[in-house]
Amino acid sequence: MKIKVGIVGGTGYTGVELLRILVNHSQVEICVVTSRSDTGKRVDSVYPNFFGLLDLLFSEPEIDRLAECDVVFFATPNGTAMLMARELLDRGVKVIDLAADFRIKNIEVWEKWYGQKHVCPELVAEAVYGLPEVNRDKIKKATLIACPGCYPTSVQLGFLPLIENGLIDLGHLIADVKSGVSGAGRKAQVGILMSETGESFKAYSVAGHRHLPEISQGLEQAAGCDVHLTFVPHLTPMIRGIHATLYAKINKGSGDLQEIFEHRYADEPFVDVLPRGNHPDTRNVRGSNRCQIAVHQPENSDTVVVLSVIDNLVKGAAGQAVQNMNLIFGLDEKMALGIVPLYP
Amino acid sequence: MKIKVGIVGGTGYTGVELLRILVNHSQVEICVVTSRSDTGKRVDSVYPNFFGLLDLLFSEPEIDRLAECDVVFFATPNGTAMLMARELLDRGVKVIDLAADFRIKNIEVWEKWYGQKHVCPELVAEAVYGLPEVNRDKIKKATLIACPGCYPTSVQLGFLPLIENGLIDLGHLIADVKSGVSGAGRKAQVGILMSETGESFKAYSVAGHRHLPEISQGLEQAAGCDVHLTFVPHLTPMIRGIHATLYAKINKGSGDLQEIFEHRYADEPFVDVLPRGNHPDTRNVRGSNRCQIAVHQPENSDTVVVLSVIDNLVKGAAGQAVQNMNLIFGLDEKMALGIVPLYP
Amino acid sequence: MKIKVGIVGGTGYTGVELLRILVNHSQVEICVVTSRSDTGKRVDSVYPNFFGLLDLLFSEPEIDRLAECDVVFFATPNGTAMLMARELLDRGVKVIDLAADFRIKNIEVWEKWYGQKHVCPELVAEAVYGLPEVNRDKIKKATLIACPGCYPTSVQLGFLPLIENGLIDLGHLIADVKSGVSGAGRKAQVGILMSETGESFKAYSVAGHRHLPEISQGLEQAAGCDVHLTFVPHLTPMIRGIHATLYAKINKGSGDLQEIFEHRYADEPFVDVLPRGNHPDTRNVRGSNRCQIAVHQPENSDTVVVLSVIDNLVKGAAGQAVQNMNLIFGLDEKMALGIVPLYP
Amino acid sequence: MKIKVGIVGGTGYTGVELLRILVNHSQVEICVVTSRSDTGKRVDSVYPNFFGLLDLLFSEPEIDRLAECDVVFFATPNGTAMLMARELLDRGVKVIDLAADFRIKNIEVWEKWYGQKHVCPELVAEAVYGLPEVNRDKIKKATLIACPGCYPTSVQLGFLPLIENGLIDLGHLIADVKSGVSGAGRKAQVGILMSETGESFKAYSVAGHRHLPEISQGLEQAAGCDVHLTFVPHLTPMIRGIHATLYAKINKGSGDLQEIFEHRYADEPFVDVLPRGNHPDTRNVRGSNRCQIAVHQPENSDTVVVLSVIDNLVKGAAGQAVQNMNLIFGLDEKMALGIVPLYP
Repeated sequence: MKIKVGIVGGTGYTGVELLRILVNHSQVEICVVTSRSDTGKRVDSVYPNFFGLLDLLFSEPEIDRLAECDVVFFATPNGTAMLMARELLDRGVKVIDLAADFRIKNIEVWEKWYGQKHVCPELVAEAVYGLPEVNRDKIKKATLIACPGCYPTSVQLGFLPLIENGLIDLGHLIADVKSGVSGAGRKAQVGILMSETGESFKAYSVAGHRHLPEISQGLEQAAGCDVHLTFVPHLTPMIRGIHATLYAKINKGSGDLQEIFEHRYADEPFVDVLPRGNHPDTRNVRGSNRCQIAVHQPENSDTVVVLSVIDNLVKGAAGQAVQNMNLIFGLDEKMALGIVPLYP
Repeated sequence: MKIKVGIVGGTGYTGVELLRILVNHSQVEICVVTSRSDTGKRVDSVYPNFFGLLDLLFSEPEIDRLAECDVVFFATPNGTAMLMARELLDRGVKVIDLAADFRIKNIEVWEKWYGQKHVCPELVAEAVYGLPEVNRDKIKKATLIACPGCYPTSVQLGFLPLIENGLIDLGHLIADVKSGVSGAGRKAQVGILMSETGESFKAYSVAGHRHLPEISQGLEQAAGCDVHLTFVPHLTPMIRGIHATLYAKINKGSGDLQEIFEHRYADEPFVDVLPRGNHPDTRNVRGSNRCQIAVHQPENSDTVVVLSVIDNLVKGAAGQAVQNMNLIFGLDEKMALGIVPLYP
Repeated sequence: MKIKVGIVGGTGYTGVELLRILVNHSQVEICVVTSRSDTGKRVDSVYPNFFGLLDLLFSEPEIDRLAECDVVFFATPNGTAMLMARELLDRGVKVIDLAADFRIKNIEVWEKWYGQKHVCPELVAEAVYGLPEVNRDKIKKATLIACPGCYPTSVQLGFLPLIENGLIDLGHLIADVKSGVSGAGRKAQVGILMSETGESFKAYSVAGHRHLPEISQGLEQAAGCDVHLTFVPHLTPMIRGIHATLYAKINKGSGDLQEIFEHRYADEPFVDVLPRGNHPDTRNVRGSNRCQIAVHQPENSDTVVVLSVIDNLVKGAAGQAVQNMNLIFGLDEKMALGIVPLYP
Repeated sequence: MKIKVGIVGGTGYTGVELLRILVNHSQVEICVVTSRSDTGKRVDSVYPNFFGLLDLLFSEPEIDRLAECDVVFFATPNGTAMLMARELLDRGVKVIDLAADFRIKNIEVWEKWYGQKHVCPELVAEAVYGLPEVNRDKIKKATLIACPGCYPTSVQLGFLPLIENGLIDLGHLIADVKSGVSGAGRKAQVGILMSETGESFKAYSVAGHRHLPEISQGLEQAAGCDVHLTFVPHLTPMIRGIHATLYAKINKGSGDLQEIFEHRYADEPFVDVLPRGNHPDTRNVRGSNRCQIAVHQPENSDTVVVLSVIDNLVKGAAGQAVQNMNLIFGLDEKMALGIVPLYP
């Protein structure tokens, strides 16, 4: 018996990416893909990369149809999943939210950054933050998953070995992170036109970005105390990929950082610590669920530099969501996620 | 028993692409990957997209090791495969050449365009041109395959339904074809630097290009007579993809072209005829072995316009090579080729 | 006394481009730049490339302020200039329209392609088509200029020497033209997002494009008879530039085409015929008002291939508009247009 | 009498960029452009963007011809200018080196990072570091200019107001800097092919980069004491532009940073401090000699973030070199540098 899957919000980039991965998942049957704007259209007429590969129509998001699924992914704008999650959970459906509705435990903080009232704060407490490298066991037993954001995934995986081992000054962490433009979504906005973002590079939201409280929450949980992080996101003229460059002041006698990173991720199927001296390209992981990390300590310096790359749409969104689904349903965690990165 | 595969020239883009596809081929064991320049290095140290996915070293191209394989792919510069093909064939190894050594039946024409003496013209006669949409039955029985070039694949698939049905004036065919820069290979040349090819578009080799005689040979075989083609290749500022725009004068009363194309490719697993009025993007097939075709006849015009797109490194090279291998070994033609195109 | 200039629609790409050129025009004073959406804002707050270079606010398009100018450029959507042109002309203001309102002499054809009723057909008859290489003398005396479209500029300049000299079969012309995405304008549309147009190439509007009747009108005027053109526009993943690849069947004994082209454009300040065997890159003219042309005749062929490149926003729009202004006001035609193309 | 200019190394990107700027400099006559590889060729045959704009041949670098110039620019690889500078200076020619030969005062440090013996250390002492915002008066009297590197220009201009006013902790400065690929030059190298650098982002040289000692020297001179900087350069998939993101721990009571920056650069013709809350795009300065800076202090944080963008080939190389030339010859510092940034 295959797992019956529903996808709400199938026309955004994370929705399409779920389809790309799940089409080749041997234990999954895609039953429902919803889209208010494209209801009734064939998926492959909107996304011709599925021509010949997927025989499915977009439908309205109806709770009764979705409730027939075993699991429903929400690849929707923030504030959508929280409207349907309670009923789906009550009817025995697992829910995996790729947006931010259930990521931040402090409701007040969430409401401030997301500019809306949370309709089911009690579910936030119940939700498991779907970062398998931290919460694998909890995920296996979860019914509601809050999939991590793209920036938070790359930054947390880069800082965790340092923080868990108490190696750095937690008062002055810096995360200088660069994202491809698909992170901004599939929205009709002048600012993300090719003529506006091509051949140019910029920082944005230096004063504050929604992913900052999410990252801080994860780092503080690992540290067991307060952490101060400066987080500066940038837009880089490419479609996919995130590159996090992380800086921290390292404590004396902190040991061999390369070994510490390799040891931390030795059993992780999707996190690779590159050999000493390497610098990961974002293309190394394009289209795949992998994270590549390199750790450097420049000579005569007490500053550690960590480089962490992911594909924002895969390990930063749809791939990680499928990884969570595999864990929930007791499948091989890597199932359907063996896609080789596309080079060149 | 898995098929033992050898790859000669594993460090070029078509070689890496063979690896990307074959790593997930359940019936294949990759035994040898050669590279003179990188002998002894781990594949994933040169191509970090294979980190954690492939445990293999590059080796010298030694005939004895290659002869232990069931099939050897040549992803080498033109003129290399012809030096080793005879001995491998004599020792019972199938040979699939991704370069041009065995594509052109007229040796004189080959020697003129490729600027060298052919060392085994007798093998050229024996070789099967590996375009499954034309030669599927011959391929199944072949021992030596000449894989079609990238431009020739896109142009032939676009013109074939028109020519086979005698619908167009063969005296004035035009193929205006645009390729991404990976088609130029992985060579240290100023002309293909990002600073030289990014944000710019140009035609090249208008006076004559090596792929012209290959295309003409294929079209003339389909026509059973001479064909005159003007072929203008262009370089477009993207990495992967070929878009052929084909023009021909159509004969009166030639019927419904859409139906003719759909009928021609109805049973082809990798050729999609898009619905009326569509225009394929090259990204529709990025990373996949598919060809998408649309046929248009502008109003009040006797000119037919065919749009044909492929990924130059897949259906135009490594993917088609694996498709040929599957046919030769009696496997499902689609095995390992179910990769969904990467969008966005 | 400087020429007082008004620009209506200063927030689109052609409007900004007018500013870029006119800021360094020694005989011009920019008096008014209108924008409904950005009224009251500093130009350099919307377009920070003008920071420190331009001290001006966007204003509402008010006829009285515009009427104080010597010349008003319309860098507006189609159908806007025709609403204000009559009054401005009556009040002695020269009008240069960068949109299509006055380009097509046949009102019926215009109304069909532009989907609206023309409000001042009598002005269409009066307007001069602003292609200086054809209409220089008329432009000098004009009060109303219809600036040519970007595609039509590149295609006409490429075909004119062949047509004017009666060298080609007018029944089967083909223009396969590729444009950067800035040609689609600065509009909030999903189809021109970087994630949608980057790393991909496609044809569009094969069934028919608005620029077809404009091109045909120009070619037919040169030919003195009917011309049949197949015109296929394509979108190429770069910001600026148009590359036209033109095909025609050449008559026997048509002479040395290189010489014919060089002779035709010998005195043209902005049209360069490249030496034999060259292929122009679009970047050769990036940011400049130049057109580069190469003419080829592949061996053993009766097909001539012309390559013609321009920057769509300069020679295809704002630069050509300034060239027209210079002619109207009796200035050096090249004034402010000596910008060197940006390479790399 | 015009200034006679010689350019040694005219075929690299900084050499071509000098030509682009100087072609429109009213007080300059370009007398010699040398290139060993292209001797005897027309400049516009190698760089067709100069077609119709420049009537000049590349020549061998002969000392006697160069000695006839008033000023010679070296747009050469490191280690070239030092071989000819002494003789040119002795013969009364001003020398402006765009490479690194005279930038670092400590010869030992220079020799370590540049891997060669310095042949004229006495000239290093004499040379003026050509950053007008720091050394304007010295430049006016100089005969030998060491033009700053591209990274050092962007980083120093961003940090200087903070350091000169003693506002930050000098023990932990961080410069996370991103460059377009033209910074890597016009060399036949696989690593900078479009297929290798397009659609990907990476850090490099984290362990140490040649520009680090140059930046440190400049910052330490401003500070009057030791400075510890962590400098991480990155390659971003675009052609032109540098974006420096700078981090420092700010002292308490350091005043209004916006005002301090605006005051520092109030009289600088090429440095713009953007209004509060802005984030500069690199395209804001594309093709121009301008530097745009924004200063931010995230809420509840003692970390200051400075964003500083330049065009690496202009303010980071050829433009700054011409700015130096203008100063040396007593011309308006802005002459020929009024080029408006190219947008889009």
